[in-house]
Order: sequence, then structure tokens, then C-alpha cells
Amino acid sequence: MAPATVTIANGAKWQDVAADRQRHRDATIAEVRPPVPEPETLPLNSTKTPAELLTKEEVEITSVNVEDLVKKIASGEWTSTAVINAFLRRAGLAQKLTNCITELLPKRALGRAAELDQYFATHKKPIGPLHGVPISTKELFGLKGEDINASYVSWVGKTVDEDALIVQCLLDAGAVVYARTTQPQTLMAVEAHSNLYGVTVNPYNRTLTSGGSSGGEGALIGIRGSILGIGSDIGGSIRVPAANNGLFGYKPTTSRLPTLGSYAPMAYAESIAVSPGPLSTSLKGLELFTKVVLDRKPWYKQPSLVAFDWRDPATFFPDRKIRVGVFSHDGVVRPHPPILRGIAELVEKLKKSPNVEVVEWKPWKHDLAWATIAALYYADGGAEVKAAVNASGEPWLPLTKFILLDNPHVKEHTIASLWSAVGARDAYRQEYAKLWSETAATDPKGKNRPFDIIISPVGPGVAPKHGTARYWGYASQWNLLDYPGIIFPVADAVGAPEREEPYAYPADYQPLGESDKYFYDLWKEHGAAGYKDAPIALQAVARRFEDEKLFRAVQIVLEEAGLPAVVPA
Amino acid sequence: MAPATVTIANGAKWQDVAADRQRHRDATIAEVRPPVPEPETLPLNSTKTPAELLTKEEVEITSVNVEDLVKKIASGEWTSTAVINAFLRRAGLAQKLTNCITELLPKRALGRAAELDQYFATHKKPIGPLHGVPISTKELFGLKGEDINASYVSWVGKTVDEDALIVQCLLDAGAVVYARTTQPQTLMAVEAHSNLYGVTVNPYNRTLTSGGSSGGEGALIGIRGSILGIGSDIGGSIRVPAANNGLFGYKPTTSRLPTLGSYAPMAYAESIAVSPGPLSTSLKGLELFTKVVLDRKPWYKQPSLVAFDWRDPATFFPDRKIRVGVFSHDGVVRPHPPILRGIAELVEKLKKSPNVEVVEWKPWKHDLAWATIAALYYADGGAEVKAAVNASGEPWLPLTKFILLDNPHVKEHTIASLWSAVGARDAYRQEYAKLWSETAATDPKGKNRPFDIIISPVGPGVAPKHGTARYWGYASQWNLLDYPGIIFPVADAVGAPEREEPYAYPADYQPLGESDKYFYDLWKEHGAAGYKDAPIALQAVARRFEDEKLFRAVQIVLEEAGLPAVVPA
Repeated sequence: MAPATVTIANGAKWQDVAADRQRHRDATIAEVRPPVPEPETLPLNSTKTPAELLTKEEVEITSVNVEDLVKKIASGEWTSTAVINAFLRRAGLAQKLTNCITELLPKRALGRAAELDQYFATHKKPIGPLHGVPISTKELFGLKGEDINASYVSWVGKTVDEDALIVQCLLDAGAVVYARTTQPQTLMAVEAHSNLYGVTVNPYNRTLTSGGSSGGEGALIGIRGSILGIGSDIGGSIRVPAANNGLFGYKPTTSRLPTLGSYAPMAYAESIAVSPGPLSTSLKGLELFTKVVLDRKPWYKQPSLVAFDWRDPATFFPDRKIRVGVFSHDGVVRPHPPILRGIAELVEKLKKSPNVEVVEWKPWKHDLAWATIAALYYADGGAEVKAAVNASGEPWLPLTKFILLDNPHVKEHTIASLWSAVGARDAYRQEYAKLWSETAATDPKGKNRPFDIIISPVGPGVAPKHGTARYWGYASQWNLLDYPGIIFPVADAVGAPEREEPYAYPADYQPLGESDKYFYDLWKEHGAAGYKDAPIALQAVARRFEDEKLFRAVQIVLEEAGLPAVVPA
Repeated sequence: MAPATVTIANGAKWQDVAADRQRHRDATIAEVRPPVPEPETLPLNSTKTPAELLTKEEVEITSVNVEDLVKKIASGEWTSTAVINAFLRRAGLAQKLTNCITELLPKRALGRAAELDQYFATHKKPIGPLHGVPISTKELFGLKGEDINASYVSWVGKTVDEDALIVQCLLDAGAVVYARTTQPQTLMAVEAHSNLYGVTVNPYNRTLTSGGSSGGEGALIGIRGSILGIGSDIGGSIRVPAANNGLFGYKPTTSRLPTLGSYAPMAYAESIAVSPGPLSTSLKGLELFTKVVLDRKPWYKQPSLVAFDWRDPATFFPDRKIRVGVFSHDGVVRPHPPILRGIAELVEKLKKSPNVEVVEWKPWKHDLAWATIAALYYADGGAEVKAAVNASGEPWLPLTKFILLDNPHVKEHTIASLWSAVGARDAYRQEYAKLWSETAATDPKGKNRPFDIIISPVGPGVAPKHGTARYWGYASQWNLLDYPGIIFPVADAVGAPEREEPYAYPADYQPLGESDKYFYDLWKEHGAAGYKDAPIALQAVARRFEDEKLFRAVQIVLEEAGLPAVVPA
């Protein structure tokens, strides 16, 4: 019998609860006996370490992407058990390298893998399109019989009796859930630091954050301890970790993928909604995930979803002609030089394509967008979140203070002031929709249609130094507008190959404001050397509900630019 | 120059404002010189009166349905001008018979008709699928340059500078807007009585209400002063007037048809949303309306809409096999005998069809549904509505008191209590979704799929006596669940042919509660004679976003039951 969980309810201190959670985590990892590197030998960049410590077969299995993995299993070349074992071991190692795991699920996963292998042996075919595909998940998605804490110390001890609906859909297609991953305190940070599990670091550079809030997913997939994971995004929480770790990530239009059975405070706030979605080592991985979930018609179980089937992206842009709006600076915070380089290189490549028309997009009042969404994140003034934090006595971490306690836009709303804030949101959304439509009219080339997608940074820099991810605007912009977004890696990482970063700040640079100065100072302090090996990724968005069109457009962008649609192993 | 509008802002009393609005209304009607019956000669049932007073050509034109009208115009048989003139005159007469008009728009409509005729003469083809089709509209949809009052005396004097988006879409297809119609005070009543315009009566029986809140539309279309109109529904406001006047009416799933440019208080309340939609003399009219609007992709102008195209209903149920859940009693208020007859006769007919499987649906806690939605209608405790009423000093009408002041479920929410009420809403929605899905498992015949649609009453009786529409449950149930609904007439009207109503209350009937007793007493008091000539219509609903499937299923139901999909002229 497992030892009783240490909880606040049974009188423990928050430190004891955290220590117990970590013991639990380590025990689940010990079951899979991953290689354990000496802490003092951990390199700055640990992405190559697994290949040195795992078996050849494990490295081979964990080096493929989802679209190839399903073929290997469907052909009978690999068993589900071998696949799950390999990923369990690599995930266990990933924990040692990046601190990204809340627990592994070896019993459940290997039991399921054995069933799948039995099915395959009997029927000589896969049980579904994700037969044997390992799925990692941000901890806040409930799993039957498992604890749920959403990174709140006070929540430890709650268990759920059903898998989250999104997990059910994936399992129904043959997937195997085997690992749960870290999140930041209160989930509202684009890093992953909690009092329960500490700081998750970036596999490419341990002085940098893996991002957040789906930061455990970002690090785990970044180091290929997973190739497909579940995150959720209300202000950048899928896209930022995807970008920070050089991955593909997809924030769907809200109300397409199911949230049922995920747990967070303010579950019934309606004004700004969370969007669950995948992170993966390949664009195809994102698409397969989404199609599988929607093919299971989750709206019959969660009726708040829109009940529309996934449309095959291949049916969009049959002539490959797309029109791409691009901006590199949102008018609030100038991105760091590597991001400007990433955008410039991509634009240069796309301009050579006869199929892609690149037009400059002028961001419209992105500072107002931030004020508008920040006024709606905590309609109760943060009361529910504060209560959940304070119930355990756990300390308030700096980035939680930044977004809630020190955020000038947060206020406790009355119904009247909430409606007023919602009105401001709708006015902004409508104005942006109008501007998007009007690009048809204002384009100097006179082409009679608006942009198909907009490409931009997803943050003011590559993966930030720990504790410095203090500007969400490039990501939260599209949560306010509820536009679907896809992250894709685009360029050589910082300092690889060794070189100076072009697009430096001018010598006489005058910051535009407080946030801009903050990031300007960071670059002055750390420079390219401080962000060594950090991947460079960008973001594409499409208009609301044009998710399938976005997938196809990103595929065309990558092909026309000569960029891979997978992360090379 | 038109005389200045009399308003509260310029110091008038509410009675003067109302009188001025009525003068304005009458002036616009006088322009089209409709026949004016002597008030003392008005019959109980005025539906036959227009045929006696209008010209033969006018009667002919106003007797077709939308799908035939478009053919007549497209073939050049009728001009748009002739059509608009006929409907303007019949609408003017309808005002004298039922008090359903807030104003006619002869200048705008005839100007537009002339343009359309010019276009047709030049191009020898219609400008769009609704070329020359007259559209009436509930007053709350803004029209460029026109006053907007949403039936609040204090609002009179506000004008708008753009047509409502739904109107824009229809106009873009060639339609002509020519009449605006009455609504009840505060819009929250299923009758149409306001201090500005008085009581709208039912054309089939002037002692009965035409319904509401789109009650002017109901009466106007009921008397064929229009054959296609725009209403809106947050608790029955399209469906009830459609049923009361023996029409077809369609409440779409919310966020499919545009609300932009319609005006009502609490515009940014999100927990229960309003759904604009059509009323018509034909099922095809509803469908044509909806397809035309969605084909114009209104989501690019109102991004809160879901961006999914209209799907051709004909693609659903290719084998005509449908599974229909039916209930006649919601467990709260027993319907009056004519409604029970309507259901019973339909079921009898459907049971003879080899294509339609009829299964009993057991309503689940419809009283809880009412408590849940009523707790969300006025999240601010009605403050905004009360202010808008009180600003003019207009008296509170009995049904406004009933739904707001005397409603035990109304409370002024905090953010926390709002979230709690939203949680209750979502729990109810999920439970109902589950029950719907489970019919697959629990059906004794073991058929492996759930109902396609549910058929039920839309109110506890036919059109009620004025002031007695004090139970919304049969309609608001589907607003809470956000299921699309279609109203269709099914049976001989009350007392036509003369006969006893079967399905009488048992002699020893014991009412289930206060609401049930209220309607039981009404029937005891008035009996069939009191509701003479009132049409009998029912409601079909489908699961959320299955609007197109619903259209096809209703078409099959009517065909299999041998019922017309049009209201005979």
C-alpha cells in the first residue's frame, strides 16, 4: 500500500507537503531506473546527454517524431512496450536534467502498452491512429486515481476519479499516458517555478527558463523525453514553452478542444478562456493530436465546445498562394536581437518564394490589448487564487507577485465593471477584426484579400533568464483576440554557429517605456553569450476558428522557406 | 423637415414620448395609405380581413411564401416595387388589426425597390438570392438613421448610424427592409406590451397575446403583413410568437447569427446569450434567411461568432431515418388540452411512418433548469434594466414585475456568486448532454444511437390571454442548454372545426405546484372557447450546433406526418 499523501489538511507544513510530492515523484521515476547523471556533471546544454546515457534502441525510438512513430508501431517493427519503456526512461532522465516531471506513471503506461501489444498480436493492426503513442501531460489535466494539485500546495491530496476528456479522446485512439509535468505557482507565469517542485530549467541552457505555464512539457519535449504532450494556454502557456525549447506548439481557438476534467481556480470565469492544446517535435504531431481529439466529438461530453469537425488542412490553399502579414515589434517592447534575426531571415527566405506574399502588419495598440486582458484575468481581484495560495502558507513567488499582486490592471470587479471590461474587450476584438479585413483595401499592391496569417515573435526574446519573463504581450495578444496560434522553430540558435547577433540595439537606444527598458537592460547585461544555444522560434496566427487554414499556411511557409517541419533529433 | 423627436432628455413626460412615437408610427403608415377598418368592426379573428380590404394583386403577392416569392421576382413576373408596396400596405393594415408596428419605412423600402428593379431591368437577373424580398424586423435591430428604443421610453431619441449586421447581410442578398415591430417593456416577456406602443394582439383572436418578445413580428407575419422577419430569443422570444401565431420560427444556436448592431441593456452579459433568428410563413423561409446570412461570413465583422459555414441540411439523413424523442409534459406545468392534442396527433402520425422512430423523452429537472437560467438573466440584480425603466418614469407593467421584481431567482451577483451560478449552469448542461447521449444505451429497442431531435410544446398552452404568459420553462429550457429550436404548426386550431378538446384535465386533478395551478385555473376559467382559433404549434430541438441537422429532421417530420411546411395563405 502506498504511503498516505502528506497534505495541509492533515496538518503538514507546506515544506513537508512539497518534500512528500518530490519523494512521490522520485519514487515513480525510480521504478523505471533511468540513468542518473552526477549532478555536478550536468552540462549547460543537456540536450545531447540522453544519447550518451540511454541504450541505442532507446535513443532510436525517442528520436523519431509522432508521424513516424505510428508507422513503426503499425508495421510491427516496434512494440508499444518497447516504445513506452524508452520514453519512460528518457523522461526519468529528463527530470534529472531539467526538473520537469511531477510524476511518471509506469504501472498504468506499461499495463496499457501490454494490452495494446496484445491487441496488435491478435488483430494484426493498430487499435487506433495513436496506437502506442506516448503522451505526456501538464499536471492540471486530471488522471483517474491520481492526485491533482495544479501546483497549489493546498490542493495536494485531491484526487480525481476520471481522466480529463482530452486524455480520454487520445486514449481512445490508442495513446498511452505515461508522464505528468510541472507548472508554475498559480499557473499564471510564462516560466515554471512552484513551491512544490522548484524551478524547471531549459534543456538547451540551464540558466534559462523552459517557459510556462506548460513549462514541464516544454522541457520534457525539448529533450525528447516526450514527442507529444498536452498543454494549455490562456496567455502564452503553450506557445512560450514551445518557443523556448525550439518546438512546435498549437494554441487552438478556444472551445474547440476540451477542458473538461482539467483543474484550475476560476473555472467558471468566462471572459477570457483557456485553450488546451499540444506541444510536439513536429507540426504533423500537432495536427494528428488535434484531429484525433476532434474526431471523437468531445462536444457531446462537454457541450460548451463548438461542435464542428476537424477540416483537412490540405483542402486549403490548393494553389499554395498565401498572403502573410509580418511584424517584428509590437510597439511596446523591442525584441532582442536573436528574435529580430529570426524574423528577418524568415522574411528574406519567403520573399524569394513566388507563392508567398509578405506584407508588413502594423500592430494596433498592443499595449491596450494587454491592459484589456489583464483587467479580465482575475475578475474577482484574485480572491480565489489568493485563497488557494494562502491556504498552505506557501510563499508568493516573484512572478506570481508580478502578475497578480503588483499588476496595476487587476481589480475586483462588480458585475457592472465586469460588463464594462467585457465591452472594452469586444470593442478591441472588433477593431482588430476590422483592421485585418481592411488589409484587403489598404494593401498597396491592391490584392483583393486580407492576410491569411500573421507571423510575429511570441516573446521579446528567446528563452529568458530565470525570473525575467515579465512581458506577455506578444503571446497574450492572441488570447485576447482568441486567434489560433502555431509556434515553429525558424533559425539557428543563439551562438550556434558562433557569431555576433546582428540587429543590435542602436547605441543611443531610448526605451519606449518600463517594460522595454527592462528587456533592453537584460540584453545589455547578458548579451548573446548569456542566451547561448537558446532556440529561435516564431508564431503564426490566423483569424478566429481558422485553425485548419493556419496549419496549412504554416506548412506552406516552412516548405517555401526551406525549413523543416520537425525538430531534428 | 421631420418634427424633432419628443424625448425624456428634452424634458417630456413618458406619456408625451409615447404619444409622439405613436404619431410618428401613424405618419409612416399614412404614407402607404392602407385600408383602414372601422375600429368597431374589428373581428375577433382578423386573419381574413386583409383579403377583404386589399386589392386582388396585393392579396396575391402577400399570399406566397419566401421560396415562391423569389421565383416570381426572378422570373420578372413581379417587380420589387409591386411586392414592397403590397407588403407595406398589408403591414399598415396589420397595425390597425393587431397593433404590431413601431414604424414603416416606405421611403427607404421603395427607394431600394426601385434600385432593385433598375438592376433587374439592366442585368436581367436578380442581384442576389433575396432580391426584392421584404424583411420586417423587431425594433431592437438598429437601422441607419432611425431611432432605437428597445421599448424603453427613456431611450427614445437615440439613433444609430449603421444597419445591424444581420440586416446588412440580408440587404447584401437583395432584401428590402420595410417595417419595424413591437416588443414588450424590457424585452423580457413572452407577450408584447410596452408603454410606448401598448398591447399587440393576436391576429387569430384579439383576446390573446401574439407572444413576445418578438411579438410584433409574430402578429405581423401571422397576418401576412410580412412573410419573413427578424426576431431574437433569450427565453422564447422567437419561438413563442411563432407558435402563438401558427408560424415557423427558428432560434439558432447562439453565436451563429450576428447580434452586432442590435440594442438592449446588459449587452456584455455573457452567461446566457441571446440568439437572433427568423420567423416566417415557411420552413424554407427560415432556411433561406439563415443560409444567406451565414454565406456572408458575418464573423469577420463580429468576431464573437463561430466562423463555420452553413451546411446544406439535405446532406443529413440521406435514408430519411430519424429518431425522435417526444415529451408532452415537462414535469412542472401540465400543458392545456389543445397542446396535448397537438402532440398526440403528431405522434400518432409519426408512428405510422417506417422512417421515424418515436421514443419518449423523460424531462430531467426542468424546474432546476428554470431556477438556473433565471439566476443568470440579471446578474446585476436588474440594476441596468431598472435604471433604464425608471429614467423615464414609465410604469412597471405586470409581466416586467413578474420576471424581474417578483422573480425569486433574481439576485445581485458578486463575481464569486456569478461564477457559482455559471458552474451550476454548466453542470446542468453537462448532465443533459449525458442523458441525451445515454438514450443510445437505455432505449429498450437497443438501437445504438441517441435521439436526433426532441419534440415538445413551447409553452403550456396556445396563445395565452393577455397578461397570463407566466411560465417560460418550455422555451427557456433550450436557451439554458443553447440547443437550436424550430417551431412548426401541427394541428387544427382550437375550436376549428368546432369540437370538444380531448386530453381534458382529470376531474380530480391536483396541480403540481403554483405555476401548474395557475394554468389549470386559466383553463378552467376560459376553456376551449376562450382560445378559439388559436393555432397549435410545437417545437423541435437538436443538440447544440446541430442546426442544419434540425432543419432536415423537421422537414422529414412534416413530410412523414403529412403536414405542410408552409402556412397556408
